[in-house]
Amino acid sequence: MSETGTRIVTIVLPETTEAQRMAIENTVTGYGFEPRFYESPQAAEETIKDTEVLFSMSSKLAAMAENLRWQCSPSAGIDHLRNCEVFKNGQAVLTCSSGAYGVTISEHIIMMILEVLRRQSDYRTIVQAHQWTRNLPVRSIYGSRIVLLGTGDIGQAAAVRLRSFAPASLTGVSRSGSNPGLLFDKAVQVKDLNSVLPDADILILSLPATPETRRIIGKEQLALLPDDALIVNVGRGICIDQKALEEELSARRLYAALDVFETEPIPEGDPFWDCPNLLITPHVAGDSALPYTVEKVVQQFLEDFVRYAEGKPLLHQADVARGY
Amino acid sequence: MSETGTRIVTIVLPETTEAQRMAIENTVTGYGFEPRFYESPQAAEETIKDTEVLFSMSSKLAAMAENLRWQCSPSAGIDHLRNCEVFKNGQAVLTCSSGAYGVTISEHIIMMILEVLRRQSDYRTIVQAHQWTRNLPVRSIYGSRIVLLGTGDIGQAAAVRLRSFAPASLTGVSRSGSNPGLLFDKAVQVKDLNSVLPDADILILSLPATPETRRIIGKEQLALLPDDALIVNVGRGICIDQKALEEELSARRLYAALDVFETEPIPEGDPFWDCPNLLITPHVAGDSALPYTVEKVVQQFLEDFVRYAEGKPLLHQADVARGY
Repeated sequence: MSETGTRIVTIVLPETTEAQRMAIENTVTGYGFEPRFYESPQAAEETIKDTEVLFSMSSKLAAMAENLRWQCSPSAGIDHLRNCEVFKNGQAVLTCSSGAYGVTISEHIIMMILEVLRRQSDYRTIVQAHQWTRNLPVRSIYGSRIVLLGTGDIGQAAAVRLRSFAPASLTGVSRSGSNPGLLFDKAVQVKDLNSVLPDADILILSLPATPETRRIIGKEQLALLPDDALIVNVGRGICIDQKALEEELSARRLYAALDVFETEPIPEGDPFWDCPNLLITPHVAGDSALPYTVEKVVQQFLEDFVRYAEGKPLLHQADVARGY
Repeated sequence: MSETGTRIVTIVLPETTEAQRMAIENTVTGYGFEPRFYESPQAAEETIKDTEVLFSMSSKLAAMAENLRWQCSPSAGIDHLRNCEVFKNGQAVLTCSSGAYGVTISEHIIMMILEVLRRQSDYRTIVQAHQWTRNLPVRSIYGSRIVLLGTGDIGQAAAVRLRSFAPASLTGVSRSGSNPGLLFDKAVQVKDLNSVLPDADILILSLPATPETRRIIGKEQLALLPDDALIVNVGRGICIDQKALEEELSARRLYAALDVFETEPIPEGDPFWDCPNLLITPHVAGDSALPYTVEKVVQQFLEDFVRYAEGKPLLHQADVARGY
């Protein structure tokens, strides 16, 4: 609460539409709060110390918010926020927007897989040169053995879509080894990851960045993959030993389609920029350029806002210790 | 039958594996026929006049085969064969390999749709320049209104996969207006095509080339499509009035992803080569570089071969008058 008794909700989500801002304003004022909309974290600094609720992914604002009680991050991951003191000491709760990204990221996953399997980089080069080469060897999702490392919202959305392409198998790998919605033919725990890698024609990572997921795919795991396997990463770059992967790609033994990297943007001079067998997208699988994603992020925030105002537990609370 | 009484089966399908050739040889010889494998239509000319059964897409061979009784084309379309005299006069029957291409062409359709909706041409250019631009406006299959013009094997395979992306609607348009497998939310006859175009965010053509399908999408139909609609064509180029489409694309009112064209290869100097809002692939959606496709083509041929040898009606017979 501010010095004047106003309960301030600071919103930094420039992608919102006018209708979404009105929906936020109506809900927030309906419970006696005052919304403050800003176009950038910098602009929000003027009011941040009096802010009770923060709807932004900014960790800088979280660190400045002396009176913060709740931050909702529009991101799926919370790796950039989990070490903020206000969450660690329990002064404030942190929610994330996991659940809003399954649609867009699963579409990105399938696009990248098909582009690699169908040699679309090569065909694009051919067409750009006004040539008409055909019959490059291609592969299909149909009949492929697919392993999904990460079976949360994103892994599940990908599994639903991949199933319709009639793969040979879908195997889910997660901490718990659970099989949500029975979407997977087989579900194993992370400790058994190595046992499923030799049968992975396609390996899809949609993991958060936590100490446990750091380089979960290392040199040993890469070596277990069959020749010509395709690794897709839409989670966090640190989940793969990037140097070890670069060696496998340069040797043209494996393929990769990566949206996330150890360092982003990829530094100039990094061998990844011109690495063979590698499709790069600049961390756009889950960017909030898709109107559906922003709508879902706002919906989930408002759903939790009502619960917050009524003193109920929040639905999208992140486990700061666990990291997601 | 040849002069020596040998019943010759001529096979021109260089993509076949050793195992597939053995399967063909075993089945064919099992019924007292003699298989002749050739790597090219030219090479097959030496034996063609004595050939009873021809497994090839060559129309030149069909014209030379004086004693032909049955040709199986490994293609889905028969537009290049339907005017051959041996089929028109009823001396020989023609079967096609419709049913073998749904897997590969539907994967191509979905890849092309996602590439256009997710601005992948732009992102590829960005990455090639080692840049890191993000947040280009993207769209999704989720929530899109999709019209499939052509509801045969390819349209059905596409519908099954598209459904898993949760589109707003799938409308099938075909000559009969039937709804195979109830895969479509709505099924209409071709005569009602114009009525569904104003609600088509994505229009997918998988039509054979027949007099009825020629320029079925003309200037009038294009004008009915909503702004920013995406047209995908994996059937035959003549189904679209290419000049009218080029005007809509140049005006940046519509998008297109085309695998087939009025003239292939696209002639040098054709405005399509550098047309905006257009994704081109060089007629590769259904090429037989995918092992699954060749396997299915061979399976269907052998299935019909047994029926042919036993005097039963063939399963994959094309209607030469109708054109597919």
